[in-house]
Amino acid sequence: MIKAGIIGATGYAGGELVRILTGHKDVEIKWYGSRSYIDKKYAEVYQNMFQIVDARCMDDNMEELSREVDVIFTATPQGLCASLMNEEILSRTKIVDLSADFRIKDVKTYEKWYNIEHPSPQFLPEAVYGLCEINREKAKTARLVANPGCYPTCTTLSIYPLLKEGIIDPDTIIVDAKSGTSGAGRGAKVDNLYCEVNENIKAYGVATHRHTPEIEEQLGYAAGRPLLINFTPHLVPMNRGILITAYASLTKEVSYEEVKAAYDKYYENEKFVRVLEKDVCPQTKWVEGSNYVDVNFKIDPRTKRVIMMGAMDNLVKGAAGQAVQNMNLMFGLKESEGLELVPMFP
Amino acid sequence: MIKAGIIGATGYAGGELVRILTGHKDVEIKWYGSRSYIDKKYAEVYQNMFQIVDARCMDDNMEELSREVDVIFTATPQGLCASLMNEEILSRTKIVDLSADFRIKDVKTYEKWYNIEHPSPQFLPEAVYGLCEINREKAKTARLVANPGCYPTCTTLSIYPLLKEGIIDPDTIIVDAKSGTSGAGRGAKVDNLYCEVNENIKAYGVATHRHTPEIEEQLGYAAGRPLLINFTPHLVPMNRGILITAYASLTKEVSYEEVKAAYDKYYENEKFVRVLEKDVCPQTKWVEGSNYVDVNFKIDPRTKRVIMMGAMDNLVKGAAGQAVQNMNLMFGLKESEGLELVPMFP
Amino acid sequence: MIKAGIIGATGYAGGELVRILTGHKDVEIKWYGSRSYIDKKYAEVYQNMFQIVDARCMDDNMEELSREVDVIFTATPQGLCASLMNEEILSRTKIVDLSADFRIKDVKTYEKWYNIEHPSPQFLPEAVYGLCEINREKAKTARLVANPGCYPTCTTLSIYPLLKEGIIDPDTIIVDAKSGTSGAGRGAKVDNLYCEVNENIKAYGVATHRHTPEIEEQLGYAAGRPLLINFTPHLVPMNRGILITAYASLTKEVSYEEVKAAYDKYYENEKFVRVLEKDVCPQTKWVEGSNYVDVNFKIDPRTKRVIMMGAMDNLVKGAAGQAVQNMNLMFGLKESEGLELVPMFP
Amino acid sequence: MIKAGIIGATGYAGGELVRILTGHKDVEIKWYGSRSYIDKKYAEVYQNMFQIVDARCMDDNMEELSREVDVIFTATPQGLCASLMNEEILSRTKIVDLSADFRIKDVKTYEKWYNIEHPSPQFLPEAVYGLCEINREKAKTARLVANPGCYPTCTTLSIYPLLKEGIIDPDTIIVDAKSGTSGAGRGAKVDNLYCEVNENIKAYGVATHRHTPEIEEQLGYAAGRPLLINFTPHLVPMNRGILITAYASLTKEVSYEEVKAAYDKYYENEKFVRVLEKDVCPQTKWVEGSNYVDVNFKIDPRTKRVIMMGAMDNLVKGAAGQAVQNMNLMFGLKESEGLELVPMFP
Repeated sequence: MIKAGIIGATGYAGGELVRILTGHKDVEIKWYGSRSYIDKKYAEVYQNMFQIVDARCMDDNMEELSREVDVIFTATPQGLCASLMNEEILSRTKIVDLSADFRIKDVKTYEKWYNIEHPSPQFLPEAVYGLCEINREKAKTARLVANPGCYPTCTTLSIYPLLKEGIIDPDTIIVDAKSGTSGAGRGAKVDNLYCEVNENIKAYGVATHRHTPEIEEQLGYAAGRPLLINFTPHLVPMNRGILITAYASLTKEVSYEEVKAAYDKYYENEKFVRVLEKDVCPQTKWVEGSNYVDVNFKIDPRTKRVIMMGAMDNLVKGAAGQAVQNMNLMFGLKESEGLELVPMFP
Repeated sequence: MIKAGIIGATGYAGGELVRILTGHKDVEIKWYGSRSYIDKKYAEVYQNMFQIVDARCMDDNMEELSREVDVIFTATPQGLCASLMNEEILSRTKIVDLSADFRIKDVKTYEKWYNIEHPSPQFLPEAVYGLCEINREKAKTARLVANPGCYPTCTTLSIYPLLKEGIIDPDTIIVDAKSGTSGAGRGAKVDNLYCEVNENIKAYGVATHRHTPEIEEQLGYAAGRPLLINFTPHLVPMNRGILITAYASLTKEVSYEEVKAAYDKYYENEKFVRVLEKDVCPQTKWVEGSNYVDVNFKIDPRTKRVIMMGAMDNLVKGAAGQAVQNMNLMFGLKESEGLELVPMFP
Repeated sequence: MIKAGIIGATGYAGGELVRILTGHKDVEIKWYGSRSYIDKKYAEVYQNMFQIVDARCMDDNMEELSREVDVIFTATPQGLCASLMNEEILSRTKIVDLSADFRIKDVKTYEKWYNIEHPSPQFLPEAVYGLCEINREKAKTARLVANPGCYPTCTTLSIYPLLKEGIIDPDTIIVDAKSGTSGAGRGAKVDNLYCEVNENIKAYGVATHRHTPEIEEQLGYAAGRPLLINFTPHLVPMNRGILITAYASLTKEVSYEEVKAAYDKYYENEKFVRVLEKDVCPQTKWVEGSNYVDVNFKIDPRTKRVIMMGAMDNLVKGAAGQAVQNMNLMFGLKESEGLELVPMFP
Repeated sequence: MIKAGIIGATGYAGGELVRILTGHKDVEIKWYGSRSYIDKKYAEVYQNMFQIVDARCMDDNMEELSREVDVIFTATPQGLCASLMNEEILSRTKIVDLSADFRIKDVKTYEKWYNIEHPSPQFLPEAVYGLCEINREKAKTARLVANPGCYPTCTTLSIYPLLKEGIIDPDTIIVDAKSGTSGAGRGAKVDNLYCEVNENIKAYGVATHRHTPEIEEQLGYAAGRPLLINFTPHLVPMNRGILITAYASLTKEVSYEEVKAAYDKYYENEKFVRVLEKDVCPQTKWVEGSNYVDVNFKIDPRTKRVIMMGAMDNLVKGAAGQAVQNMNLMFGLKESEGLELVPMFP
């Protein structure tokens, strides 16, 4: 039985980790860390866990935690995981960091976009960017996995094959993203009140969102050279789900079959990436509660562009589910263990 | 492996049966019946099942079905199951009927409220009303289970202990119920369009809803004599969930502890009924996607009444989940097999 | 031109007052009071007012305000209006208080339910309870109007005629109420976050909600004697709207026509109370954005009870609209001036 | 008093016309046309109009209608208005057509995208494309106004100034649009059921949506030459509102002030187009129920693109409100008459 500790267990991503790990046959949660609710019963914070989780919330003590568990999930804001990390901790326990701290290899880029000094850049080289479908082998031997951001996961998986295969021009990529509100976290802010979000849609972080450099880095690997994108997230009145609609110019005339083949080349054997049938547009509802990413595309011969679409549950494949997928890889378990979640509809 | 057939597999309750049975280790679905979508791939009707279910929809042929499967779930409108039923079918296969056909013992009551002639009243005596927490033993040996209605399940479980223990006056029960929109089914009606339901709440079927006699029958068993109730359902702008708020006069002065003890007496060992802690009001969101019913109560000493509350997912404990719970009982499996679904939040 | 000042202009009720008064031809808003946003442009707090309102928010200085305006609306939490009130202010300006401070005549009842000491009980006798349809004449000459609570407005108007006409038993009244989330205010609380409210319904304040004694007082006047009720509010995932479903035992056998006649007796000439046609259930969506209350009823001959229903927009007839209706009465204007708002659908 | 007739009065756009015209002091609705509900009371179809509209629905008889009214609004699917139109009708009455029939000047383009034969192309030359802010003078003398589509209105107004001023490259325009569900109409389709739309977002009509050529034609006028765009609409779980996020490459290095000046040049005196302050992103909720379009932009110096955003209420400025604005122009009334609707929040 793998012993797991969660730092930040009372945020939405932390709560989803609890939901998923509770159903994982090889894992036992030993530590529900939550600075805001120390000593409070976890099931009082998340009443859905009543009679399922009996534990109380504990402090975010990573030092102590590393002596007690085999794996630590950090589902906290940027800066925290990196500031608590040291070689001793890493030598004792594996870490899946759901924050942005170890996702971006270039420390200057991180510091510029996140506007904080990186507390432990020495771990950046060894950190594995845990997009399992692409970095599977590296994740298997990692001590420290940087769990990808929600938007970068959906975006990268939707665009990766066409960039890798040279079908699209790397300098023309525009990503228009839409997210449910759980992505904004459980903090008590006026902007996230029901009445402010409901019956409303808006863009935010236009041209400045912090997931931009993360996406650019990953797409750059696919393109084989640096690239810049436009990335515009929108807040949608729903709890869960991310949809990305991406645009790029084709480098040559291509048929539906050729583009489909490019997707199939990378995803044919991927359990969690579903390339939909022709003309079926991904919908967030069809993946809700599951670890799937649904992708598809549409060629526009008039404008010589391709529209790439991807949908996933931001809390599962976009956070907790992918974190567990990485943990499975790190511990040599079946990659889909605990993640055979059938999407819930409606 | 138990072979299962579903008649009405493309309604919302049918879809939920597919979701749950897909994760049930002892069951294999052999027949996805759907008159509206014959020959269409099931995953084209419910895209969430893409790459999970490969089958095509088939006709509602109960005769043939009974030769191929061990259990048939009928998730169809009233009248259909009863009209297809006969002794031969029942001798070959077990049936869990999610419609109202075999729920009400008195055929005249059924015919009056449903305004149809009962096609096979001869099976009423043997049909077991599948409210597992109350009729568990009978369900274990049943050939035909009448799966309870969504409102009756939530209402009966919320009120049963107090009625059984004589704490409330049977003639004073008022049930004010609220349901998500999946309860209205997947039929294309203007009243169920997004723009008609969203940002709106209304009562419907006031003093005439068909679940009324079903609730009255079950509560009558608890009271030991016939009783009449007021039952008013409301349509709430959400997909899933039923909340009932029930009122009754106390027969005597009681303390919180006495009433709590009454609930505990019946539910202490029930996995799927959670009696919440003092002053915690049930919320539908806390049980979403799961087979739980959360119940609680509040004594009002001013009016000498007690307010009883219950929340559950109408498609799970209120339909497909309870149907599988009954199937587990009928086949001697662990009652919670396939139903260890952790509620999803948010 | 009547000069108006608003204390608490940046809450949801305050914002609705601004929306309505902006369209009122005889009123000019001179003071947008908001302690939280002093000096900030009002249109930055409520971007819908961009290029419509140019003013900045000001402090809640009632003393100064009373010298500058003809009428003050206080849309603030309980206790504030009463603590700022004095005879000089009242001698200079009229006040419509949207808080609960002057609604309940018995100061002990107020202090018990609100758990604060009343700062100025000396004004309770002269304060007029501004339920216009019932206290119209008194409002016309009032200096101080206590604008009714949202739930009490909807409940009282739905039940009043049957109680007044002796058709229902005063000791059997049960009110099950459902409200949109704007009723919870604009404070940044976890409980009111989008993800907590959306796809969810719950009861709250069961047997303890502060609107209970206010309703009891008003219904007591109709019954001609004190009475106690059960009142249970529920939080519904929508922005606006209140629906109440009330139950009471009939004192005698009555026909539909007799009960209808009772409603018509009181509301036939009331512009803002619409008694719906037979069997049409009120829906909150049908009154959204307007000052209407839609009421109707259903007799249940089986249980000898009547179900009374009422729907209104909690921010309009339940707050700002009724406040303006009262102001119109106090200043001798046409009662519906500025309130001819056609409900918006969908 | 202008006499108005509405063909298609029971669709959502038709209903909004009724709401707006009911509050228009110079207009009287004489004809509520609705083939689906002939002889039914209009207020039974739209209960919000109870006691406000007393009329019954009538057939769509344009011939007869043209003898009785001064202006006809056709809020019907494409093809109907054009098939009923003739010179006699036009000589007797003015027409504001809310369908697509007369929006596209090139009949072949219309027929290709709409896949029907145009029944009366002879009226195309005289039809005025009623985007008031751009074609104001022509609308004043028009007999026949083609009321713009919802997406084209929002898109064109958001992009027009930058194209006209040569700030963006016409060949790089990508429009990602998001719409509330009322845009899908009131037809009873499974895809528009509450449970299918709620908690979901999807793209639809990718690279094939019929508003594409309409937008291209209008933007082409601004650019002074033909252009092609990518246009991708998305269905958002909300009733009303359209948000467009548009991307284009800058033709040169520009400052915020220069781009702002371009918007101000065209919209400074436009009542219904609000250019928001720096870094404020348009939100659909801030314009709900009103005739405003809120626009703004963000320069991305990294990618040398500009992101243009626009928000409006699809049923008001995107349909009925703009239709009334056109009617006001055609009859020499104040352009904003009946349209001084303050956005409703929340």
